[in-house]
Amino acid sequence: MAKELTSRNEDYSAWYNELVKKADLAEHSDVKGCMVIKPYGYSIWEKMQQALDKMFKDTGHSNAYFPLFVPKHLFEAEEQNAEGFAKECAIVTHYRLKADPQNKGKLIVDPDAQLDEELVVRPTSEAIIWSTYKKWIQSYRDLPILVNQWANVVRWEMRTRLFLRTTEFLWQEGHTAHATANEAVKETTQMLDVYAEFAENFMALPVVKGRKSEGEKFPGAIDTYCIEAMMQDGKALQAGTSHFLGQNFAKAFNVQFTNRDGKLDYVWGTSWGVSTRLMGALIMAHSDDDGLVLPPKLAPIHVVIVPIFKTEDELNKISDKVQEISSELRKQGYTVKFDNRDTHKPGFKFAEWELKGVPVRLAIGPRDMENGTVEVARRDTKEKQVMKLDEVAAQIPKLLDDIQSNIYQRALKFKGEVTTQVDTYADFKKVLDEKGGFISAHWDGTKETEAAIKEETKATIRCIPLDAKEEAGVCMYSGKPSTRRVLFARAY
Amino acid sequence: MAKELTSRNEDYSAWYNELVKKADLAEHSDVKGCMVIKPYGYSIWEKMQQALDKMFKDTGHSNAYFPLFVPKHLFEAEEQNAEGFAKECAIVTHYRLKADPQNKGKLIVDPDAQLDEELVVRPTSEAIIWSTYKKWIQSYRDLPILVNQWANVVRWEMRTRLFLRTTEFLWQEGHTAHATANEAVKETTQMLDVYAEFAENFMALPVVKGRKSEGEKFPGAIDTYCIEAMMQDGKALQAGTSHFLGQNFAKAFNVQFTNRDGKLDYVWGTSWGVSTRLMGALIMAHSDDDGLVLPPKLAPIHVVIVPIFKTEDELNKISDKVQEISSELRKQGYTVKFDNRDTHKPGFKFAEWELKGVPVRLAIGPRDMENGTVEVARRDTKEKQVMKLDEVAAQIPKLLDDIQSNIYQRALKFKGEVTTQVDTYADFKKVLDEKGGFISAHWDGTKETEAAIKEETKATIRCIPLDAKEEAGVCMYSGKPSTRRVLFARAY
Repeated sequence: MAKELTSRNEDYSAWYNELVKKADLAEHSDVKGCMVIKPYGYSIWEKMQQALDKMFKDTGHSNAYFPLFVPKHLFEAEEQNAEGFAKECAIVTHYRLKADPQNKGKLIVDPDAQLDEELVVRPTSEAIIWSTYKKWIQSYRDLPILVNQWANVVRWEMRTRLFLRTTEFLWQEGHTAHATANEAVKETTQMLDVYAEFAENFMALPVVKGRKSEGEKFPGAIDTYCIEAMMQDGKALQAGTSHFLGQNFAKAFNVQFTNRDGKLDYVWGTSWGVSTRLMGALIMAHSDDDGLVLPPKLAPIHVVIVPIFKTEDELNKISDKVQEISSELRKQGYTVKFDNRDTHKPGFKFAEWELKGVPVRLAIGPRDMENGTVEVARRDTKEKQVMKLDEVAAQIPKLLDDIQSNIYQRALKFKGEVTTQVDTYADFKKVLDEKGGFISAHWDGTKETEAAIKEETKATIRCIPLDAKEEAGVCMYSGKPSTRRVLFARAY
Repeated sequence: MAKELTSRNEDYSAWYNELVKKADLAEHSDVKGCMVIKPYGYSIWEKMQQALDKMFKDTGHSNAYFPLFVPKHLFEAEEQNAEGFAKECAIVTHYRLKADPQNKGKLIVDPDAQLDEELVVRPTSEAIIWSTYKKWIQSYRDLPILVNQWANVVRWEMRTRLFLRTTEFLWQEGHTAHATANEAVKETTQMLDVYAEFAENFMALPVVKGRKSEGEKFPGAIDTYCIEAMMQDGKALQAGTSHFLGQNFAKAFNVQFTNRDGKLDYVWGTSWGVSTRLMGALIMAHSDDDGLVLPPKLAPIHVVIVPIFKTEDELNKISDKVQEISSELRKQGYTVKFDNRDTHKPGFKFAEWELKGVPVRLAIGPRDMENGTVEVARRDTKEKQVMKLDEVAAQIPKLLDDIQSNIYQRALKFKGEVTTQVDTYADFKKVLDEKGGFISAHWDGTKETEAAIKEETKATIRCIPLDAKEEAGVCMYSGKPSTRRVLFARAY
């Protein structure tokens, strides 16, 4: 089964597409550009949701739900935002179908059921949410509002890839309102930190925190902060964004409040989101030619146990023992799968659970029963060891922690290896083509240079890293002065 | 605050609308027919989701996600289903807006971005899901498929009410596929039992389990089962449905499988759902003229503690004690809110938390501190007692259990009181107008009689109760023979 995957070296893109489908994560649907997230894939997304949701609540946020549809006049209100999303909006124009008089059993759009005003299927919810906040906010006492929404959004895409770029996707979008610019900026960076912490601690994914250039920021934002991750093929992936909206949406929707001095002022805003795109990042960062490699903290199944047996009697004896082990591991909060199918051979099962990325596999046969041992295989390094059965309950949790940490360290090492500092445009292009990865270089800060580099190399400024030091230099492209390096990469 | 609510006797409908808004549960949005679910309301929905999701998983189901949009040709495939939902569908016809050449800053639908085929925003997902199952199912080994989806759906409504009837609503929809009719029927009734258990154990809402008449069943189903609940105004509310779909969708989408005998057969299906409508049921079943009454198992806050103080020193001493109590209760899994605002008087706070339905309120002042006591008020009965501070951690959990049970018993008693058995149509109309509630009566089983009674009285057959006994009788309307009683009511 796993052997059927194209190798990463051969064709990284094909490897990714096959892996997503064969590991039962997602597939294309009958709706152009939309995916079906299959149960196994969805269970990983649920783990992400749970961890993120707890982090949002621990930082004082509550969930709420706002409408799917945005009336056109609200959508238009913040001009930059409207302009940024207008080209990729699904539009509802009618509210009824009727029987087709020409074709029995077929339906047509009822021309008598045309809406007075078109509805935009939300590509993001700033417009509908700020038009609501207007009703909620009168005074500084009503602030801050710290709200998050788990929802589906639609951005019409011509070229789609499962998880990475789909017309409909699932995400969370936080939308907060504050009395001061300072407080809103703090919220923006706090949520960036939450995302970075989630990526590193749960996804085992090291990220660079940074600020987007003017050309790459969110339409309607003053500043966009992001976390950028590195995939195994040397391309970067934007894994989450947090926007300081200033008073832009408050002004567009006339959301004013009486401040502590009794004066009327516009409210300050932020918004921040991560999406099912994270699934793509998770897959591409860690997996190998045999299939998924999942960090234990996001694995739907932590341990799979495969019995090696010839007779039913052997299976029964093994089952009793497995029952004990499973129950001890489950008590500690781990999910254990006992694969006792008699329709498939152990080798097939090994390959299948490798493909699905289960972090630890136990194999146990009659000889193990005699010796009181079990064979333990870890997915990340493929290393095997023999463990005493009565140590399993104590050792497996440690092993899972070690796997979580190893996957992270491996990704961190890789990221370090493919991050290169260059000073000339010639070197830049060379590194980009030969090695890829993050390239740290001086840039003159202009849109023109950014656009020219993108046009010539397909590399974009991923971010201006938050930890970038002041450093006098010259732009590798224009030769104009620059005060700090930025991070370039080709990206998903 | 609470005093501002219209009383239930005066105007039940106004009471409901005001309560939903004033308790911060939901409000109308700027999108016709769509609501905003506010953080406090959403936190109750989250509690419902958690409990239901666990019950679904405990019965072997997994979550997945299918597209929001249904291409028209798939929507049409199952004719009854298509006909049933065609009149209330939001239709996407275009995928782009562009600048309005006539009006600077405005947008218009781009006529060059018309879709080749219209997309229906899902009113329910049988069509898109069965078109997917076709790809997943070849053999009996691929069955059963036990999948659930948490999602938003859209059914265009002309007359809407918060939670009860909105154009967009949130729900879960289970969609299962089976190798035999028997297994599918078992799944249908199992999920009905899950819903009934959830309603009774979590919502404290007694329900009648039954089967819908032909006229009231789900478009495309062979049989629809439901749970019906009784509201305080004597009107019924359908709280959940579970459909046996037979092979209808399998035939419409040509989903066949090789059975154990090696023969090709159509797959058997079920679907089942509950929605944010349950929020309406929860509110209307238990709440009173002072506000919400929440069963502890769904209450976002279990205990609110209000300090009675004049000086900061008094507040500090109380806070220390409250810290202790809260920490002990939190350890046991309860959510405790310490309302130490110095901007509002205790009386205002009492009314506010009553309005929001917090099951238990503790009030503690300097004299309580001296005596080592606290005043405990329960929301359901308004009874107050003085409790020793050192007994709070042990007694409050018992009190919460008692409140949960009392709310259920009260609703059960009420349901019993407003369930009436009648034998003549004259009595039926009299009971309906004077008392409302469930009316158990003989019916001849015809659509015509059902329609005539509905036309004349606005009462519908809520269900044919599963526990209805065989009983010879005559239809109260037509005088024709009948073998069992059915349950009528006016309904939401």
